[in-house]
Amino acid sequence: MRILLTNDDGIYAPGIAALKQCIEDLGEVTVVAPDIEQSGVGHSITFSYPLRIREVHLNNEFIGYGVRGSPADCVKLAICEIMKEGPDIVISGLNMGSNVGIHIFYSGTVAAAVEAAIMGFPSIAVSFDISGDYDDVQDAARVAKNVIGRILKHRLPKGSLLNVNIPSIPSDQMKGMRVTRQFAHDFQETFSKRIDPSGKAYYWLVGTDKSLHHEEGTDISAINEGYISVTPLRYDLTNYHLFQEVKDWNWDDITSYKENKE
Amino acid sequence: MRILLTNDDGIYAPGIAALKQCIEDLGEVTVVAPDIEQSGVGHSITFSYPLRIREVHLNNEFIGYGVRGSPADCVKLAICEIMKEGPDIVISGLNMGSNVGIHIFYSGTVAAAVEAAIMGFPSIAVSFDISGDYDDVQDAARVAKNVIGRILKHRLPKGSLLNVNIPSIPSDQMKGMRVTRQFAHDFQETFSKRIDPSGKAYYWLVGTDKSLHHEEGTDISAINEGYISVTPLRYDLTNYHLFQEVKDWNWDDITSYKENKE
Repeated sequence: MRILLTNDDGIYAPGIAALKQCIEDLGEVTVVAPDIEQSGVGHSITFSYPLRIREVHLNNEFIGYGVRGSPADCVKLAICEIMKEGPDIVISGLNMGSNVGIHIFYSGTVAAAVEAAIMGFPSIAVSFDISGDYDDVQDAARVAKNVIGRILKHRLPKGSLLNVNIPSIPSDQMKGMRVTRQFAHDFQETFSKRIDPSGKAYYWLVGTDKSLHHEEGTDISAINEGYISVTPLRYDLTNYHLFQEVKDWNWDDITSYKENKE
Repeated sequence: MRILLTNDDGIYAPGIAALKQCIEDLGEVTVVAPDIEQSGVGHSITFSYPLRIREVHLNNEFIGYGVRGSPADCVKLAICEIMKEGPDIVISGLNMGSNVGIHIFYSGTVAAAVEAAIMGFPSIAVSFDISGDYDDVQDAARVAKNVIGRILKHRLPKGSLLNVNIPSIPSDQMKGMRVTRQFAHDFQETFSKRIDPSGKAYYWLVGTDKSLHHEEGTDISAINEGYISVTPLRYDLTNYHLFQEVKDWNWDDITSYKENKE
């Protein structure tokens, strides 16, 4: 089995190293990841400047290919240029920090998996909540490997991917796994306004404590309650429920703007 | 009516200026947009460095607030810091270039509208296909204003937004409007590999000719056939169709990895 492994924390991040080590007995792992950290880049792609592929060594050992671009760039470039036969599965992670709720829109980790799915390859995003005191990445990577192993026994239908989040507790305290839906409300993020030494204002984005949010059946509640969360995602954003309603609005003479001109 | 207007082409772009001029008789327009072009940034957000808000003047006239950040940053900052009463509607555009199919994931224009919807405000992304020979931004902006005016007669339900694309033809040749779904297939983008003067390889992302794609009922077919495309979107990515199937997989003892340790 050919596995493409990527992330958004960068090729030197501990999460990708730990996960690579754990999944190496599942198949042949090719790492293609950003040269530098790309957290929060969302589904950005690079077309204004060219990309380069760099062979990356660590402690005299080849660990993978580094790309000075986004996680989605890495997936595109890996599939088009590096893994010419195509991967059997694309795994993005292990991200240090959960990717739940509307944060999956900001997440480079999830974007890489979405990109793979769009290109027609099965994909899984895997993130480790470190908002608690617990941050043993080796323990989380072994749980991630278990989850990935189970998923690989099945065929993911075209157009879909899985978003896995691991709670911030030791694996022997985890309660199990839950299939969840995305928590689809705002986290009410704010800005901290500060004044620089020259008297000018600047603003830091301030996240909220996600553990305060609760809605039964969602990704965020699952990890807050000590469960591994597996959320099936799709990349068709169409709101089919709103389709007929919008059709029924008055769209007569919509291309005419004579009324404005006269 | 308080209108927040943003884009991803930057505050000096002709599209936002043309649209601002057209919609000024719909309400009070506040422009908060990126300082510099942000095309392809997707739904990125900025938390690794602070943001600043700059009052922007053009020809001695105040035109709006510039932010050295992404379109999503602009929306967050506008709503949290600049428009304390909150906008009645958030409009993102007019983008020079269509945002259809899976390109809506890469689009800063759409991301700004998604961000507004997540924060609980009605929002519309508006893009102008310029892949044909036609690129009269004033004409397209007047059509956009018509479409926006029609939408404002209705209430968009929470959790949804509209993605509007205007075809690359004069308004008097447009055939009307279609409510469409997102074209949900890969556009088969590739890379052009080149060699730099020092002999090293670099890669340019090469888009495909979207006019080659056709699927009845989709955003891309609508604009290719000369219709304005209006696609209702949602920001819940959960694939509910896959829910039960994933639940039915074998998840027994998922948190145990004793087998790996021994």
